[in-house]
Amino acid sequence: MIITNGGVTAPIGFQAAGLRAGIKAGKDNKDMAIVYSTKPAVCAGTFTRNVVKAAPVFWDQKVVEQGVARAIVINSGVANACTGKEGLMNCEEEARIAGELLDVAKEHVLVASTGVIGPQLPMDIISDGIKKLTSQIEDSVQAADDAAHAILTTDTHKKEIAITVRIGDREVTVGGMCKGAGMIHPNMGTMLAFITSDVCIEKEVLDQMVYELVEDSFNMVSVDGDTSTNDTCLVLCNAEAGNELIQDTDSPQALIFKEALGHVMTYLAKQIAGDGEGCTRLFEVNCFGAVDNKSAKMLAKAVVCSSLTKAAVFGKDANWGRILCAMGYSGADFDPEKVKIVIKSDHGKLTLVENGTAANYSEEIATQILSGDPVICDLYVNQKDGQATAWGCDLTYEYVTINADYRS
Amino acid sequence: MIITNGGVTAPIGFQAAGLRAGIKAGKDNKDMAIVYSTKPAVCAGTFTRNVVKAAPVFWDQKVVEQGVARAIVINSGVANACTGKEGLMNCEEEARIAGELLDVAKEHVLVASTGVIGPQLPMDIISDGIKKLTSQIEDSVQAADDAAHAILTTDTHKKEIAITVRIGDREVTVGGMCKGAGMIHPNMGTMLAFITSDVCIEKEVLDQMVYELVEDSFNMVSVDGDTSTNDTCLVLCNAEAGNELIQDTDSPQALIFKEALGHVMTYLAKQIAGDGEGCTRLFEVNCFGAVDNKSAKMLAKAVVCSSLTKAAVFGKDANWGRILCAMGYSGADFDPEKVKIVIKSDHGKLTLVENGTAANYSEEIATQILSGDPVICDLYVNQKDGQATAWGCDLTYEYVTINADYRS
Repeated sequence: MIITNGGVTAPIGFQAAGLRAGIKAGKDNKDMAIVYSTKPAVCAGTFTRNVVKAAPVFWDQKVVEQGVARAIVINSGVANACTGKEGLMNCEEEARIAGELLDVAKEHVLVASTGVIGPQLPMDIISDGIKKLTSQIEDSVQAADDAAHAILTTDTHKKEIAITVRIGDREVTVGGMCKGAGMIHPNMGTMLAFITSDVCIEKEVLDQMVYELVEDSFNMVSVDGDTSTNDTCLVLCNAEAGNELIQDTDSPQALIFKEALGHVMTYLAKQIAGDGEGCTRLFEVNCFGAVDNKSAKMLAKAVVCSSLTKAAVFGKDANWGRILCAMGYSGADFDPEKVKIVIKSDHGKLTLVENGTAANYSEEIATQILSGDPVICDLYVNQKDGQATAWGCDLTYEYVTINADYRS
Repeated sequence: MIITNGGVTAPIGFQAAGLRAGIKAGKDNKDMAIVYSTKPAVCAGTFTRNVVKAAPVFWDQKVVEQGVARAIVINSGVANACTGKEGLMNCEEEARIAGELLDVAKEHVLVASTGVIGPQLPMDIISDGIKKLTSQIEDSVQAADDAAHAILTTDTHKKEIAITVRIGDREVTVGGMCKGAGMIHPNMGTMLAFITSDVCIEKEVLDQMVYELVEDSFNMVSVDGDTSTNDTCLVLCNAEAGNELIQDTDSPQALIFKEALGHVMTYLAKQIAGDGEGCTRLFEVNCFGAVDNKSAKMLAKAVVCSSLTKAAVFGKDANWGRILCAMGYSGADFDPEKVKIVIKSDHGKLTLVENGTAANYSEEIATQILSGDPVICDLYVNQKDGQATAWGCDLTYEYVTINADYRS
């Protein structure tokens, strides 16, 4: 597995563009992007489980069900959520405009939005934006970079990656970009991830893979526990690598591709966690020895989501009582008296809890370890072999500032 | 229903004391309290559902099951949680010492602790404290006040109430005190509530009543979503009012008492929410028209627990997208397009959302309303007749300060 330069345009046959259409305030802010596949691409996707779904989620679910896509049109600034019938019609209109300009069916154009909940999309600006985007698309590293910037809201940096693996006698590339999780700006929340690959793969196999990998990557990230109305992960695979069609989830070829796709998703997920609202440090929680993987996920996620634990990480306070307490209300079944808790970072490693009670440790060394980045916490439950990893960030003054002051 | 002066000593035959034993730092901090019933009292209780339960919870569950209690010994400063067998033995020892001094069976002595998770109780200090407490108990308003102060951790004020109702030809009094919910200080979390009454009631009827009322009061409060290891609500009824024994949950007498007990619990619950960590204002969320009461609870609680909504209340920002978003991930079934959202306070009333989309409202007036205290948010789901109320508080810089800096 080789990490290569670039993002969504790294796989063969994918082009992109990103520019400022004028949706967001501030004249330097890019706010529209496009991803285009020169050939029809098999597509898979996962979407928010929030009952309140944004209009683009409804549109994309239909496209993904049908299974083939050619382009994704993305805007930041306005979420197109809670916008009723007009919002849905605007999605179709975006797809129609892009389809016409790219000479592809509107049913093959995906759309995604992130930004303030409530307002309708400014369709005149969007329409002009799509025209400019389609005239600028190219397969360069710069084009991917522009697109990766245009989808951001209050993320502090772009998030993209590309990796190459060998499948049979072919090089297969996976590229991806995403924007931050958590409702990073008031109502600006949303995790959006767009992944491209030139792999040749059957839709059913891709669907299954994406479902499983999203569960272990993006769905294990929490910034503030608020699930957005727009969360979307889309994967497009256009077969341009020329590898033999992957049609069996258990084949060696499938497993190689799954590892590559999983690497991209996990990388992007960690980037999101480490750039959470007001975050100073990435917080990773591993759970080992749970009754099953599901229990391990519940335990790791409860700790990573606990406001008290997150504030303690910010304060570099080895407050293991909060960790054990969060495990206790996670809903997972475990025996508190068997629990061991270890913290580690680039500054060292320390056991805080053994058999559910305090280990004999130095608070000073603990504080030193908690000053590192990322801060890693290992939970040993000592039951069976279930394990999981969750990612989050610390809770800081800055989080409150970002979320209290935005619109006032 | 008449609100009277005082707290747990207001009902006939209840005495109390509160003093500084020396567990907490700071020479003026009271840290031990006792509540004593001169006659055997029927007792009921509810406890944390956290898998990680503090030692006193285990001890009290046995006492409550057996059904009769004479005293409650309470300390703040140390939680006696995650303390293994020694922690359990210390509970028994506390009960033994108090029992001997009060001439009651140790099996009739309840214990409660709140404070740092991990350390063992300092039994020499506790033992001296119990001796002093038992020598000082009296039925005065001052004694109840002392006890109400001694159970606090970082609460900014004591929380107590007493009310009197007429049942048949007798006056029945209910008194209560509690300490703050949320893990108010690092590891110092815990909601403790102690309620006394001179009502004459059967244990089974009391159990049922307490269970139901706690669900609608204390269990509808959230400060930070972290469920403590020590949460405890105990109710002691010693029959000294001389009313006819209440033995039927549906009798008029039972309903009068239930209303009084419910009033005490709801008052204390709101006091806890309004004094949450770093809180500037009480935040009340009412849900009307849900499919059932359970769904209404899920919806109201999701909104009151949402970090983003709480930060928006702090920032006086009418960020209804966050409210609708939180409803969406609550797990309750509802139709977003039927939702109406109204905010109100002593500064006015305003509809933010109608049929799931933005109502035509003034942001300026909204900010004015959100400056009031309490801030009330009404969610109309327009399905059936399920309803519920949840209480919380805003999320502030101060919350982060309290929870990040405590031990460093």
